Amino acid sequence: MSTGKHHEYNVIKLFEKYGYIAMRSPASGGGTKKPRPDIFAGNGKNFYVVEVKSTKKDHIYIKKEQIKELKTFAFSFGAVPLVCAKFSRKPYTVFMLRQLQKTEKYYKINLNEIKKGHELEKFI
Amino acid sequence: MSTGKHHEYNVIKLFEKYGYIAMRSPASGGGTKKPRPDIFAGNGKNFYVVEVKSTKKDHIYIKKEQIKELKTFAFSFGAVPLVCAKFSRKPYTVFMLRQLQKTEKYYKINLNEIKKGHELEKFI
Repeated sequence: MSTGKHHEYNVIKLFEKYGYIAMRSPASGGGTKKPRPDIFAGNGKNFYVVEVKSTKKDHIYIKKEQIKELKTFAFSFGAVPLVCAKFSRKPYTVFMLRQLQKTEKYYKINLNEIKKGHELEKFI
Repeated sequence: MSTGKHHEYNVIKLFEKYGYIAMRSPASGGGTKKPRPDIFAGNGKNFYVVEVKSTKKDHIYIKKEQIKELKTFAFSFGAVPLVCAKFSRKPYTVFMLRQLQKTEKYYKINLNEIKKGHELEKFI
């Protein structure tokens, strides 16, 4: 699995295309004590914090701890937490946390269940 | 006048002391096309975007353009815009935008009017 600035950048551009102010969270991408979601995006009406996950495989695993942080963060800022999944040759697809599949230690998104999510560009 | 990571860091620490999640905005401090306020801070109830300004003089000038950006930004994220002023030997003091004095091209805070603001630690 790779997250990666490239996909974060694309997601930011998509939000901006639809009139959002969007930006990378400062500590996104590691190196700090405090995990932060990857992206903030707001348009005066909707405000999202987004964790971007990409993969060339057919599933994405996200640590429960990371989702917990995403929730805490979103709650603090009155925002809606989203996971944005990028599978190869598929559009950026967003999932509400309740749409993620739970395993013991992870939240999971399967490529074959991508329809449960919303294509980012339609969602915003 | 100096802004400066040092003061941003102190302001973040103060917010965190009172249970806020606070962080530097990624593009804070220049180098990018899009100006961003210095700090985001939220506790689930209050959400602020903060521009931090420090000086050793007895006044602080802030470009109107920068205040406009702060407003736009705050509006997009449903947050309250604040300016946090740090004068030498004075505590961090926050001002709502309406409390700033207007000049033709700038917003201004005078040291001798610091009482118009709120000491940050009491404010949050």
